[in-house]
This record gives sequence, structure tokens and C-alpha cells, in this order.
Amino acid sequence: MTETMQRIVLASRPDAKPEPANFRLEEVPMPIPGEGEFLARTIWLSLDPYMRGRMSAAKSYAKPVEIGETMTAQVVAEVVASHHPDYAPGDIVIAPFGWASHGISDGTMIEKIDGDAAPLSAYLGVLGMPGTTAWVGLNDIAAAQPGETIVVSAATGAVGSLVGQLAKLKGMRVIGVAGGAEKCAYAVEELGFDTCLDHRALDKAELTEAIAKAAPDGVHVYFENVGGKTLEATLPNMRDFGRIAICGMIAWYSGADNPAPAPVVWGAILRQKLRVQGFIVFDHWNRRPAFLEEVAPLVKAGKITFRETVEDGLQNAPAAFLRLLEGGNFGKQLVRVGADPA
Amino acid sequence: MTETMQRIVLASRPDAKPEPANFRLEEVPMPIPGEGEFLARTIWLSLDPYMRGRMSAAKSYAKPVEIGETMTAQVVAEVVASHHPDYAPGDIVIAPFGWASHGISDGTMIEKIDGDAAPLSAYLGVLGMPGTTAWVGLNDIAAAQPGETIVVSAATGAVGSLVGQLAKLKGMRVIGVAGGAEKCAYAVEELGFDTCLDHRALDKAELTEAIAKAAPDGVHVYFENVGGKTLEATLPNMRDFGRIAICGMIAWYSGADNPAPAPVVWGAILRQKLRVQGFIVFDHWNRRPAFLEEVAPLVKAGKITFRETVEDGLQNAPAAFLRLLEGGNFGKQLVRVGADPA
Repeated sequence: MTETMQRIVLASRPDAKPEPANFRLEEVPMPIPGEGEFLARTIWLSLDPYMRGRMSAAKSYAKPVEIGETMTAQVVAEVVASHHPDYAPGDIVIAPFGWASHGISDGTMIEKIDGDAAPLSAYLGVLGMPGTTAWVGLNDIAAAQPGETIVVSAATGAVGSLVGQLAKLKGMRVIGVAGGAEKCAYAVEELGFDTCLDHRALDKAELTEAIAKAAPDGVHVYFENVGGKTLEATLPNMRDFGRIAICGMIAWYSGADNPAPAPVVWGAILRQKLRVQGFIVFDHWNRRPAFLEEVAPLVKAGKITFRETVEDGLQNAPAAFLRLLEGGNFGKQLVRVGADPA
Repeated sequence: MTETMQRIVLASRPDAKPEPANFRLEEVPMPIPGEGEFLARTIWLSLDPYMRGRMSAAKSYAKPVEIGETMTAQVVAEVVASHHPDYAPGDIVIAPFGWASHGISDGTMIEKIDGDAAPLSAYLGVLGMPGTTAWVGLNDIAAAQPGETIVVSAATGAVGSLVGQLAKLKGMRVIGVAGGAEKCAYAVEELGFDTCLDHRALDKAELTEAIAKAAPDGVHVYFENVGGKTLEATLPNMRDFGRIAICGMIAWYSGADNPAPAPVVWGAILRQKLRVQGFIVFDHWNRRPAFLEEVAPLVKAGKITFRETVEDGLQNAPAAFLRLLEGGNFGKQLVRVGADPA
């Protein structure tokens, strides 16, 4: 009997909205670590909206996932066998193993973490890639300043919830935009946002008006996760010389949504003299030590709140991912793939 | 007999394309300068695409021109009477008198110029607002660097022609985009651009392909004057971390042109991690001394070429302006309103 592992591969590219048939669960032989490599088992798998982009063949940040290839992801994993001098069984790592139960590595792109400093799952969320994204976007890309007003879309998502909390700690006025009354209540009551607007209850004109009311002196910074209606409602409220950090555009990943014509956004950038910058955190990974130095103590001290939606079992990752794209998660979306360390 | 002056006012707002009926020539009493004021007569009137924006009531850089108000413009004028200690008859000034034969001023927004250092009309073009725009956009907004590749739209216009020449002097590879074979030949043969693409002879796909061929390693900087097809063809050719300085969008000022949907530009900014910034030179006017220090000697030494399209007579300004919006000018569009100083 050969030992096996599980992985989920891209079976086909989505036409517009991804569906279950775009994914396939495979059972394959367990890889054997060679000299200078280790084998680890996945405990937590991270699901993030950017993975939608990797499913398409179009040019994006990174090469797309090829048909038949394992879906991209970061995981938290425990080393179970090692021929690498720096890694021993029991070590906990963040690793780019993808949607898979196990992986081997020579240490490239691996970050060893202190399993006692915070819950392991936090290293995929508030202390992981989404947290680093929030911090880099707020500080380095948008150059947010105390006293300014910020609009945060996808306000209760893994990135947005940290953006808003960091902005509050910085002394900013924080306006969240989220889908649904429950998320909005959470943003205000638990995350401490000044206000949160429910984009499902408001049409574009109403949302525009609501932002204007919440930001009577205009919006200095827009942290963009969604595109669509939220962008179109925020743009006219931007102050001259406002900054927009584009981190995602989930509302537009799978096509239409009756988008505005390009001159609407281009004209706003011109007339309002905005600075708009797209970014992906991997280009700013050198900022991770500074991020951890500032934010890890805040998490330990309970000054940063975070929330997770956990799906059990690797086989359920596609369904959880499809719900994530529809906004069905609440906080960081995780899949528990294996048990906690003994 | 009372002395009179002429001015052209906004008679009505254009629905889409401006037309002659949107303007009205008026004969009004000559203003009399009070204490601390001077009267000057216009010699040269500058026509610029940004004036199209002022004709609409929509929010723009500045307040729109009101119905019945004189159309906005910078002019070169000669002081003819003065009760201001700093201005004497015979002084030459750049003044915001608008489309008018005369104006009075208390010195606000007035720049005295050395009439012997360069042709007077140059102070409305290569050494004036368009020139300062080109220099600020290239250096401060786009942070253009030697060795980089730049695409300049409206390449033979007042701004674009200087952007390209300054970029060449900086050691950049310069790709112009202009309308018509004659303009393109001028950009390459007279202005020294590396290449110039005729957007009238190429559809969007062909223009995209032509830019890709002219910039095999991609485009670092796009100096945006036009929007429309040129933008859409340049975007996919931008390198990761490329910068776009948005100075204008003449192709989109009067509506449609079958624009792309917003996600096309927003997605490019995100995926290619572009930095896009709108600007208007008046916010950067403190950079004018540095600009003049660098560029005036280049003009005097003949290292900067410039070309003018001159219309005679204030009454012909509307027709010249409408042609400018259609790309019918060649280089800086001027109206000669009065004779040179004696």
C-alpha cells in the first residue's frame, strides 16, 4: 500500500463565474523529500479572492494556474520529515503548497513561525498575507495620515477589517462598506469603524449620498477591494489629491455588473488630481518584518480583532471558495485540512 | 465717443461637441484701472484643450465659466496705463484676461516677462503653461528616468511636443502618438522622437501592436493627453510598476468615442501595479522657476523646437478653438489679438 496525499487541481477555466466543475480533487502518491528538502502536512489552507485571477489565462500578477495544476494557496503546515538542516519535524511553517494536504520544499518561500505567539490560523489572516496587504496598502501605497478620512470596501473581509482597525489606531475617520446589515454591525461594534454602509441595501446614488454624509469634508483615502458600485459611489466623494490603493476588484473579477465607462474613472483621476496605485503585497514582502513588529503585539494584546470562517476538509475548498467570491464568508476564509500539532 | 474693448463670452453650454453658437462676441466699455491697478492690451491669446472643461457645469479643476462670462485664457499683454507701482506702460505680462482684447489687474496671477529673451508667443506655449505642464508631468508626476521608454499622446501638441523633446534630452526612448502622417513626420524629423504612430491610420488592435513593436521591453511612462483609443492601446503595453501622468483626455471631453468599460483600466492598474496620477499645472506653479531655469536656455539655444498655429483676430477664436478640439491645429494654438509692442 502506497501512502497518498490529496490535492485540488484546476480542471477547466471558468467562462465567467467559477463553478464546482472547474475544480477536481485528486489522490496522488505522497511526495518523498530529497536531500535538502522537507515534507510537511497542511493544517490550515487560506482562500483568498486573488485566486480567481489565477484561474484565468489572462495576464495577471503572476502566471495563471495551468489546467491540471494544483490551485495556488498559502498554507500553515507542520514539518513531518526533513532532510533540510534548518527544518525539523514539528516545526510550523507558512508554505505555498496550494490546495493540498501535503507538500515538499527546499525552503524557498518558506516562513517559519512561532506556534505559541498566536493561533496558527492567524498567520494566514491578520498576521499573514492579508494582514501584510492591509498594512502595506494603508501605509506605503496610500500614505494614510492621522486625521484623514478613509473609505474601506469589503470592510469585514480579511484585508478590509485590518485596514479599518489600523486606520482607527492611527487616528483616522473610518467609513466601511460591506454587504449586509450583520457585517455592517460587526464593523462598527466589533471592529470600531466610525460607520459602515450596506451596499446591498443602497443603490449607487444612495451609496454616493451616504458616503457624502459620512464624510462631509470628503474622502482622503480609498482602500479599494471591490470595484463596481462601491468604487463609483466613492469616486465623486474623493477630495482633491486623494489617494486610492487598489488591492482588488472582486465585483469585477467575473465580468460585467454593468460597469461605468472608463472615462468616468479616468476623468475623476484627472479632475480631482487623484493618485491611484495598484499593488500586490508580494512586491513589498521586505516590509513584512516591520509589519510583524508593529501588528503582532497588537494582536497579542487584543487590540486587533479578527474573525474567521472555517470550512472543514480539503474536499470542501471549492465550495468555500465559490461562496467567498459571492461574499458569503465573514472575516478570513480558511479550510481546516489537518489536525493541530500534538 | 466711449472707448470700447472686445471679449468673447460663453453664450450657452454645449450638449456634447461645442459649436459656434456657444460663444458670443461682445463690445463693452473699456475698463478704467483704479488705484493699484493697471490696464493692458492683449497681444497673444492662448487656446488650450482644458477650456473645453470650463464650458461645462460639471465639477472640474476650477469653477466652470458662467453663462455670459468671458471665456478663460492666459494672454500675453502690454501694459498701456498703470496706477500700480510695479507695472509701467510698455511692460509685457502674462495675464489671465481670458478671450478679451484688454484687461485690468491688481497684479494677482500676473507674471512679468522679459520680452527680449524669447518670442512673446513662446510664453504661452513652450515657456508658458503648456511647457510647465510638460516639465512637471514628466519630472514630478511621472518621475521619468533616463533609459526608460515613454509614450506621448497628442505628440505634436503644445504639451506633448515638449514632453517628447525633454524626454529625449533626458536619454529616454520616445514613442509619439499623433493624428495624421504629417504630424508623425514632424514628430520624428523635427522633434527627434524615436518613432511616431498615426492613430488615424490604425485601429485599436493595430495601434496596440505597433506600440508593442516600438517598445519591445514595454512602456515605463505614459504621458496621457487624450484617453480613448490611444490609452486603450498603451495600457496593455505598460510595464509592471509603470507610471501614467494624466494631463488631459481630449478624446473623451465631449462624450462617447465608444469607450472601454471601467474595469479595463482599473484592472490594468491593479494587475500591472501601475501608479496613475492626475494633475493640473497650477497646483505645481511653485516649480515654475526651476522649469524656466532649465528650459528657457534650451529654447534660446535652439535645442527645443516649437511650432505654432496662429489665428488672426479675437473674433476668430471660437472657430480656432473648435478646430483645436478636433486636432486641426499643429503645435501651440494662438490667436493674435493685437500688434507687437512698438
